[in-house]
Amino acid sequence: MNVLVLGAGQLARMMALASKPLNVNVRAYDVGSRTVVDPLNLAQSYGDLAEGIAFADAITAEFEHIAHDVLAQCEASGKLHPSSQAIKTGGDRRLEKGVLEQCGVANAQHKIITTEQDFADAISELGLPLILKSALAGYDGKGQWRIKDASQAADIWKDIEAFFAGANEPAAQAVVAEQMVPFDREVSLVGARDAKGNTQVYPLVENHHTDGVLTVTVALAQNEALTAQAKAMFDKVADALNYVGVLAIEFFQVGEQLLVNEIAPRVHNSGHWTQQGADTCQFENHIRATTGMPLGSGELVRPTAMINILGEDEVPSEVLSVPSVHLHWYGKGKRAGRKMGHINLSADTNKALVERLYQVAQLLPSAAFEDIQQYAAELAKKY
Amino acid sequence: MNVLVLGAGQLARMMALASKPLNVNVRAYDVGSRTVVDPLNLAQSYGDLAEGIAFADAITAEFEHIAHDVLAQCEASGKLHPSSQAIKTGGDRRLEKGVLEQCGVANAQHKIITTEQDFADAISELGLPLILKSALAGYDGKGQWRIKDASQAADIWKDIEAFFAGANEPAAQAVVAEQMVPFDREVSLVGARDAKGNTQVYPLVENHHTDGVLTVTVALAQNEALTAQAKAMFDKVADALNYVGVLAIEFFQVGEQLLVNEIAPRVHNSGHWTQQGADTCQFENHIRATTGMPLGSGELVRPTAMINILGEDEVPSEVLSVPSVHLHWYGKGKRAGRKMGHINLSADTNKALVERLYQVAQLLPSAAFEDIQQYAAELAKKY
Repeated sequence: MNVLVLGAGQLARMMALASKPLNVNVRAYDVGSRTVVDPLNLAQSYGDLAEGIAFADAITAEFEHIAHDVLAQCEASGKLHPSSQAIKTGGDRRLEKGVLEQCGVANAQHKIITTEQDFADAISELGLPLILKSALAGYDGKGQWRIKDASQAADIWKDIEAFFAGANEPAAQAVVAEQMVPFDREVSLVGARDAKGNTQVYPLVENHHTDGVLTVTVALAQNEALTAQAKAMFDKVADALNYVGVLAIEFFQVGEQLLVNEIAPRVHNSGHWTQQGADTCQFENHIRATTGMPLGSGELVRPTAMINILGEDEVPSEVLSVPSVHLHWYGKGKRAGRKMGHINLSADTNKALVERLYQVAQLLPSAAFEDIQQYAAELAKKY
Repeated sequence: MNVLVLGAGQLARMMALASKPLNVNVRAYDVGSRTVVDPLNLAQSYGDLAEGIAFADAITAEFEHIAHDVLAQCEASGKLHPSSQAIKTGGDRRLEKGVLEQCGVANAQHKIITTEQDFADAISELGLPLILKSALAGYDGKGQWRIKDASQAADIWKDIEAFFAGANEPAAQAVVAEQMVPFDREVSLVGARDAKGNTQVYPLVENHHTDGVLTVTVALAQNEALTAQAKAMFDKVADALNYVGVLAIEFFQVGEQLLVNEIAPRVHNSGHWTQQGADTCQFENHIRATTGMPLGSGELVRPTAMINILGEDEVPSEVLSVPSVHLHWYGKGKRAGRKMGHINLSADTNKALVERLYQVAQLLPSAAFEDIQQYAAELAKKY
């Protein structure tokens, strides 16, 4: 069985690694060079998109910002999972909000803005503070603005106009304004749905961000009621999209209520812990779903945490000396802020896990991991 | 970091898969074609042995029957782990017995035979029944004879003479005669030792063979005294060989005593379960040891069993529907009796595991898996 992944980054790489034991061969379409490559050996190329489509029994994507003509070409082959509509929904906050409304799934009050008048209306209708997110581009904190006071409106609007002027396409000339949710924490649910509608979800996890970028995910044995609430929302969204593959939903938790922040139609950084902590990792389940195999269990095997490695191409070897620590490098060249790899660590109990997370964070260089060290220290105090 | 593996079969492939997350790139030397290949894509070649040695930071082996000139060339580079002596010891039952005697490690009474007179002496000194194993070649039941009654001696000697006549080298013209041990079961211990002498062993596992070939391994939470006994023997042998890498020791269990059957200086089929059931799998630990990284924990995470898939290139899809079942195919062409892949299955308790093993065995076609089905049924009755 052969799979083509749109995108040739670390997610395609980890899908390829999870696929080999299933006798599934993965090739990846690099959208920059427009060539099909081996995600485990990027120097090895296999022709253009048409050749990649011909090679594949199934086609999927590792990210949602894919040119629509590429999606159309793939969908015409009948092999694309999830659908182009699902992928586009993840890449366009307007479509995303539309699906959430259609499903009746709780999310922040919002308004789509394309003009200065829309902006003024959003401020008066939704109140302040607001967070403004570009409709198409941007993730990991890019293309976002926050307004706390009406006096900032003129300056922010100038910024947004400049952003619109730099847009590649008219569809990118919009932002979604949302009420700032005074959330207690950010959590996410990753799950898989197969073509028959069967689902397997992983436990709800806590996410910590540094400067808008995910840096730590913690998967604990806990809070089944909250996971059930998230699962109900997952099912509604996945069913509405007739989704096939792994889908991630990020939530704001306010008290015991979850509000959807955003959805990602793909394997997700907050699911990397599943490589060590879950029965079947998200990469294997995505491949199982998209190739028509039965889904694997999403059961938590052991409390597990993930630390992202950003902009660093090595960590002290003492880290690997800590029991139940596993490194996952992406084979990339070093660049400031770049996602270079992640560390998974597991333990037998929640308490042992947060202690181990603290221990590992302390072994990492403060220059790059200070915020993670602080978060780990706070978490350790809670257990 | 780069590693060259001598041998380009499934063990090199699984080492390569375990290495990528560590940013370790593995190439494999195919001893048949004498070319270096990508173990994840055998069509991709990278020149001859000298080029492979130049590429590598560390060199290791996936099997013990490697031409001595190849081992010498690798050892001269200073990169070979384990040593050529350790590899040769695993490939020559005379050397193996010598190391066991030197370490004072319990094993079956034995005698080396090169002449008919030696054979007669072995029968009178050791008594009957005896098992005769060729000194160099042969594993998985090949090159073996059993003698129960003295009247068989003349015929068996004729067979052995024919075997000697077909031998490629004088060193192969020997067999080791051993007392047949009336063992209760066959067990093995897989462990890793690093260059500083640190070790991490996996729990002792039970092995079931069909026609002399391993077909099932079961790793349960149990019998720490027996694992400790095996660990003490592992340490003696590994220290004597100044061993670096993963080493497997197969034992006969007689009551509460273990006798070494044989040692394998490499990752081992009876350690494949570690991919799902142990904190760090044997492939990762072999790479960690041979590249100088700290060893990972060998702790049992969940009771886990492995079923070998011999000569079959598919299994019913229902198998993957059973929770905690993972398939590991080797990407090989189908051939009768060939090791094509394995199934790992896990559960939360020993009892749940043997029940799941029984369930999975029943889903497999009886034509190829009947003996495994019987073993699984017997095991399920014991728990």
